[in-house]
Amino acid sequence: MEKGIQWNEQVDVLVVGSGFAGLTAAIEAGESGKNVVVIEKMKSAGGNSIISDGGIAAPDTKLQKKWGIEDSEQMMYDDMLKAGLGLNHPKLLHTVVSNARSAFEWTIDALNVPYLDRVDIFGGHGVARCYTPEGVTGGTILKKMLQKINELGIPILYSTSFRSIITDEQGHVIGGAVLKEYDYRADTGIPANIRTQRGIILASGGYGADVDFRSIQDPRLDEKIQTTNKPFATAEVLKSALNIGATSVQLSEIQLGAWSSPDERGFGDGPLFADYILFQYGVIVDPHTGKRFVNELGDRKQLADAILHIGYPCIGIADDKAVKYSGWDISKAIRKGVVKTFDSMDDLATFYDINTEALQASINRYNGFVQRGIDDDFQKPIVDEAYPMEKAPFYAMRLWPKVHFTMGGLSINERAQVLDFNDNTIDGLYAAGEVVGGVHGASRLGSCAITECIVFGRIAGQNI
Amino acid sequence: MEKGIQWNEQVDVLVVGSGFAGLTAAIEAGESGKNVVVIEKMKSAGGNSIISDGGIAAPDTKLQKKWGIEDSEQMMYDDMLKAGLGLNHPKLLHTVVSNARSAFEWTIDALNVPYLDRVDIFGGHGVARCYTPEGVTGGTILKKMLQKINELGIPILYSTSFRSIITDEQGHVIGGAVLKEYDYRADTGIPANIRTQRGIILASGGYGADVDFRSIQDPRLDEKIQTTNKPFATAEVLKSALNIGATSVQLSEIQLGAWSSPDERGFGDGPLFADYILFQYGVIVDPHTGKRFVNELGDRKQLADAILHIGYPCIGIADDKAVKYSGWDISKAIRKGVVKTFDSMDDLATFYDINTEALQASINRYNGFVQRGIDDDFQKPIVDEAYPMEKAPFYAMRLWPKVHFTMGGLSINERAQVLDFNDNTIDGLYAAGEVVGGVHGASRLGSCAITECIVFGRIAGQNI
Repeated sequence: MEKGIQWNEQVDVLVVGSGFAGLTAAIEAGESGKNVVVIEKMKSAGGNSIISDGGIAAPDTKLQKKWGIEDSEQMMYDDMLKAGLGLNHPKLLHTVVSNARSAFEWTIDALNVPYLDRVDIFGGHGVARCYTPEGVTGGTILKKMLQKINELGIPILYSTSFRSIITDEQGHVIGGAVLKEYDYRADTGIPANIRTQRGIILASGGYGADVDFRSIQDPRLDEKIQTTNKPFATAEVLKSALNIGATSVQLSEIQLGAWSSPDERGFGDGPLFADYILFQYGVIVDPHTGKRFVNELGDRKQLADAILHIGYPCIGIADDKAVKYSGWDISKAIRKGVVKTFDSMDDLATFYDINTEALQASINRYNGFVQRGIDDDFQKPIVDEAYPMEKAPFYAMRLWPKVHFTMGGLSINERAQVLDFNDNTIDGLYAAGEVVGGVHGASRLGSCAITECIVFGRIAGQNI
Repeated sequence: MEKGIQWNEQVDVLVVGSGFAGLTAAIEAGESGKNVVVIEKMKSAGGNSIISDGGIAAPDTKLQKKWGIEDSEQMMYDDMLKAGLGLNHPKLLHTVVSNARSAFEWTIDALNVPYLDRVDIFGGHGVARCYTPEGVTGGTILKKMLQKINELGIPILYSTSFRSIITDEQGHVIGGAVLKEYDYRADTGIPANIRTQRGIILASGGYGADVDFRSIQDPRLDEKIQTTNKPFATAEVLKSALNIGATSVQLSEIQLGAWSSPDERGFGDGPLFADYILFQYGVIVDPHTGKRFVNELGDRKQLADAILHIGYPCIGIADDKAVKYSGWDISKAIRKGVVKTFDSMDDLATFYDINTEALQASINRYNGFVQRGIDDDFQKPIVDEAYPMEKAPFYAMRLWPKVHFTMGGLSINERAQVLDFNDNTIDGLYAAGEVVGGVHGASRLGSCAITECIVFGRIAGQNI
């Protein structure tokens, strides 16, 4: 294949993608003196990383000790395996948890990322082990990474789209075909070939926004389902690896957020109300029947599946007491009209076209469960602070799942090398971050994605 | 690619695999005058088909009418979609259910397959719609297919292993590379290339026995988990299609059979008792508690997940009346010691080390549900013929899941054409049967596999 190829430039290492995984890999490869270039199809860096809240999970940290939290690698491993329904690849999962603390410390020691002086617990974690950067945004981490990239003199080629992997006759990766001056809307650009002496690190993210690709694996996820991802979270780089014999892992494991509203784009502001207030203290009803149909405190997968099974947006309701008790400020969601307020349950029923008597009967039935502490219908665990829903105003939002994360991706080994069907490495091909499959199994826990990006980004950058 | 290839023979259609899908495809292609050859890597025909019980599902049949059973395509569609957790590809599922009756009738009218004069209900089906050939074995159907293959003069090349798909420069399929005189244990043979004028139909079955391949997708399913499949149910043909750009669908959806016994190898003889007698008329209990823990007529996934969650083999129990009423001969399973008989429930409890009082309480409670027609605990549908379990001898078997079926496989369209990542057809490549993915979603219902094999086998053979 090499003969006849016009090489436009030559580097040691080509990194595809400028999110957390790609920049981490570039920094590590650059630190060891390799000649690195990062390509990014969009006009600026950060991909989905920049719109995340920046939370990173790690066990056994100084911050945990300071707050008196007991944790261990094994506990984090067990939590992730439980959420993943046992489908997680043990070696990859072990690699993530055993390197999580050093990855977190690296962001402090090498990058000077400032973190809030707190440790949070997210759903599915057995203990508080999540650290949040100042500003509660991935942008804080990204800015520090870009500073380091700049110090190291690593160029980021923006508007440069990766198209295919170039191999020699033995199947070794020797370069990549790209489109420069990439026009994202027209999907056009100027072809160029980059020769790589050491190899390529794929860090292109997931395919949550790639309707065609994701709906092959889960036909429910057609264009009617929104995503919390940026619209450019597509599968072309993943496909380029499959095309040269890389193996895919668990591509049909696609995570839906159940806390999302169809009345706003992206992640939005509704999830704060849904995840922190209504799931715990309120109810979700089918507007066609006025009835509950699910344990509102089920995990993401259970809730999303139940709502999708209903087939149209369902209505989540909480009362004033719940909102006040929670302490969260949901005024932005209300201003945007994502969360609506009603002076009475009748008004609410009328607005959403729910049969008033049926809705009130459901609320009464649920209130009875709350008073008895047992949900006969859906076995929702009634939290200690719960009380009957009865105090106006009532708050409501429409709930319709959005694609949030793709657990599936490329098969890699513990050294971040991409594997073929027979678990052999593909010479010169590495991958890290959401483009990789197998770490999270059937369901990813919150704040474990950034850990994965940095752990495997570092490993890829060090090993290539 | 074509230049330099030594073609050893030329046909219109090459069919890979001699199970139900492959033979059906070959018959249909042969009936329309095409020059067909079937290759089979083993020394005899039938693959996993021959070890199945031969049950085939179809809605709206004469036999259902005769027995007063109301059914429809939509009801079968809904049942399969529910079991598949909505992951089924709607067009493929619709193709299967809308052609199921004609596929079943074709086996009678064109092949003269003799069926028992009965209609059975299997777990997850809403009504009885399963037809069983005489002898309760897929061998009965296979024999008739082989007769037809013989009549049509279609050769089956045994001990011939498919290795790779040969394409021309435009990516059109023009032939296949095989190994003749294939030595299955040594994985060696004499290379030969078969030129195909019209194309290749892949009907090579699933990868239930391919520990390496299946454990990439579900790492739990390592060599310690048995399979009901023949040991040659491996993935090399599936991989050959992925290697030329075919898309895989839902490879991580791998079904475990819940009716299997750890006390015998392979599919064995226990499943006849479990699936036809105890799930309908009996109970499954956790030997550590003596209690039921699942709707015994739940679908395979529900049952297998529930038993795996318990973590050790559970005990299925039915009474003499159920066995007699069912009409099934389970003497072989009894002779093998897989199903055991007991003169009293006390003896049974003692043998399996179950607390006698707890077990009898569970049986009494269940008998109460049967008398009222409602299972308060697990919502098992109580069939009309059910009656309290009380007549000795009691029959019991240990239940522990085995890998049974791989729902994932190649992406195809309604014409059985294999698709690439962009849903474009790969010219000259067709697939049918278990090598295909997407029909069953997350879980296949019993007796729907043979329906799929025959429906898509016919379509592939007619369209190629």
